[in-house]
Amino acid sequence: MIQTSIITIGDELLIGQVIDTNSAWMAQQLNKSGIRVARRIAVGDVWDEIWTALDEESKHADIILITGGLGPTADDITKPLLCKYFSGKMIVDEGALQNIITIFTNIHKLPIVERNLKQAEVPDNCKVLLNKRGTAPGMWFEKGCKIFISMPGVPHEMKGMMLDDVIPLLNNYFQFPHIAHRTLLTAGVGESFLADLMVDFEKELPTNIKLAYLPNYGMVRLRLSSTGSAIQSTEDEIQQYFITLQKIVAEFLVTTEDEPMQQVVANLLKARHQTISTAESCTGGYIAHLLTEKAGASSYYSGSIISYSYNAKESLLDVNHSILETKGAVSEEVVIQMAKGALQSLRTDYTIAVSGIMGPDGGMKDKPVGTVWIAVGNSDKILTEKFTFRFDRTRNIELTATNALNMLRKYILSLS
Amino acid sequence: MIQTSIITIGDELLIGQVIDTNSAWMAQQLNKSGIRVARRIAVGDVWDEIWTALDEESKHADIILITGGLGPTADDITKPLLCKYFSGKMIVDEGALQNIITIFTNIHKLPIVERNLKQAEVPDNCKVLLNKRGTAPGMWFEKGCKIFISMPGVPHEMKGMMLDDVIPLLNNYFQFPHIAHRTLLTAGVGESFLADLMVDFEKELPTNIKLAYLPNYGMVRLRLSSTGSAIQSTEDEIQQYFITLQKIVAEFLVTTEDEPMQQVVANLLKARHQTISTAESCTGGYIAHLLTEKAGASSYYSGSIISYSYNAKESLLDVNHSILETKGAVSEEVVIQMAKGALQSLRTDYTIAVSGIMGPDGGMKDKPVGTVWIAVGNSDKILTEKFTFRFDRTRNIELTATNALNMLRKYILSLS
Repeated sequence: MIQTSIITIGDELLIGQVIDTNSAWMAQQLNKSGIRVARRIAVGDVWDEIWTALDEESKHADIILITGGLGPTADDITKPLLCKYFSGKMIVDEGALQNIITIFTNIHKLPIVERNLKQAEVPDNCKVLLNKRGTAPGMWFEKGCKIFISMPGVPHEMKGMMLDDVIPLLNNYFQFPHIAHRTLLTAGVGESFLADLMVDFEKELPTNIKLAYLPNYGMVRLRLSSTGSAIQSTEDEIQQYFITLQKIVAEFLVTTEDEPMQQVVANLLKARHQTISTAESCTGGYIAHLLTEKAGASSYYSGSIISYSYNAKESLLDVNHSILETKGAVSEEVVIQMAKGALQSLRTDYTIAVSGIMGPDGGMKDKPVGTVWIAVGNSDKILTEKFTFRFDRTRNIELTATNALNMLRKYILSLS
Repeated sequence: MIQTSIITIGDELLIGQVIDTNSAWMAQQLNKSGIRVARRIAVGDVWDEIWTALDEESKHADIILITGGLGPTADDITKPLLCKYFSGKMIVDEGALQNIITIFTNIHKLPIVERNLKQAEVPDNCKVLLNKRGTAPGMWFEKGCKIFISMPGVPHEMKGMMLDDVIPLLNNYFQFPHIAHRTLLTAGVGESFLADLMVDFEKELPTNIKLAYLPNYGMVRLRLSSTGSAIQSTEDEIQQYFITLQKIVAEFLVTTEDEPMQQVVANLLKARHQTISTAESCTGGYIAHLLTEKAGASSYYSGSIISYSYNAKESLLDVNHSILETKGAVSEEVVIQMAKGALQSLRTDYTIAVSGIMGPDGGMKDKPVGTVWIAVGNSDKILTEKFTFRFDRTRNIELTATNALNMLRKYILSLS
């Protein structure tokens, strides 16, 4: 089987200043084409360490994808290193040069400085991959029977190059096996409990099919993966096991697609031509952000009122001042009033209202950090639930969003 | 110099289903203690590949940190593998067992199933690290003069274990050099332009100090890193170069701390005891989310109106219906009215209003995808600016937020 390694280059990855989102995206795209990523490795902008990584990864893999270190500045050493590694000579590539001139003239509308022009230089023994979104060209090297492809680290430049050139070229070069995945999402149940339900199922799985548990903020995704040479038989076989899997977890099943909770809610609303709004306190707009992250949100999402202060709760959502004073902002009464206020001002079919103490400070004796009240509903009915999460602010914001969306999902389904 | 490798284990990392945020966080914490991370590697839940990674990374590094694969389910093979790798024998650890019982009894309030109890088993030749946040214990192995530490992959469990045990234990075991970093943030200027300003400065840098350029959504962070044996001299030396660096980029400087743009705005507001609100259309609550991500937001942030629909713009922000009809939602007139509406309803000192076309669809001839109008200001003055970004929705949302916060930052500073 053809193996791939991804090498990401940059000191910022090793001191944790930047989270590597590139290699996850690359792995996703490669997988769709049946290209297995066996290893991902990050090294700093250090000559010997990059050199060693190239040596080692070419022992493990047939395809070595490299991102980063192609910028115009002195800390970017990937290109001269690759030139030396493959014993090439630097030459100016006319296509890359024209591309740089076009980008500066038409898009940046800025004068070109010398170091930008230098980005048109490439080793003479590589195939140049044009970068339509930036000035650093990609480079395709062959050594023995191994392929090395160097791409810029800027995400949208790398993504364009992967889709336009790298994946089509690899598909021409190799014959890849078929990799099939099926993913479903469960909520409201732990990994261990699910595993106990799954004992017999796991025993019966053939060796070419693997089951993985992916827990994430109150949800567990289950993924079946299968490798085979023929598309149809691989797909048929995995589909049969996937149907069984769905039956086993039916009670906790959110979706049989590899999509997040907010997409499930969005799809329910779109199918019903209905709309949603949110009234958020503790999540500070995060639920609205999740609902609008993907294009097309305007068909089901109208707006939100983020009422962080008492004042905003009263003036925008008509929450009663004396209830805020007596019950506190984190209370069942207040989230009900917030939900009603949002339905009234934003005139949507459904709404979600949340109020809680996200931490790490602000806890009280009867309302410790992690206390959250959630209300979901429509003009007929408002359902409420109290949750007690724990200490981590980011996690509490995520868990509040997940549970609120799941409550609404169940409520919508209960109506149909 | 002591070198560290981080090995993260899990198929989900290699098919791109999960973004590895753990190793960035780990690297940050290690760096603070002067522990250099030289390599980060991700491998799947595959016996031979994990084994090879352990062999190889122990050649490169003195400390090998391992996360993931410790769950209670069948795809988690890290523990039996480590037991075999270090020629141990599985035994029940009494402390881990008590911890599991406590977590199930007091926190989950669920019956314990057999596979949870099995998590109390550990190889007899490791030091057990108690997991206060979950059921999988950490394990510390020594082999030759190398340290191997296995931790759970669940982020908040790993984080607790790193801070409570791993870092203090490593600091006792080794004598680490001092690593100093200084980071500043610039906005509104490209990497190449900055690099041209920096030519002489970079030539004069001593070999133990490195300068890195970290571009990110309309901003470039510049980071100086220095390694030395004595704390004071390392800090003094880097500080001197950092002051020079600040002078060179003064015109574009946002902050001399390693903090995001929203934190800079938050700090300005806190220092002035002033407040902010947002009126967001195209960013769908993302600016509000950025402002409330960190604790303490209630002292400067009051609330937001997310007006995705025309209706919400009119009813909540008092945007004039005929202006929406004639000028369109993405227009200077509308963002001015949105800003005024937010100042009026949310009664804050400042506000930010944004309206744009984020893509990938929805572009018009005179307003292509990426067109965004931003307004910032207070009751005295509203400033507006039109931006033209490009095709990627996520990037457009990020760029809109960055530019809006930067416009407000500059406006606040212009007043004082």
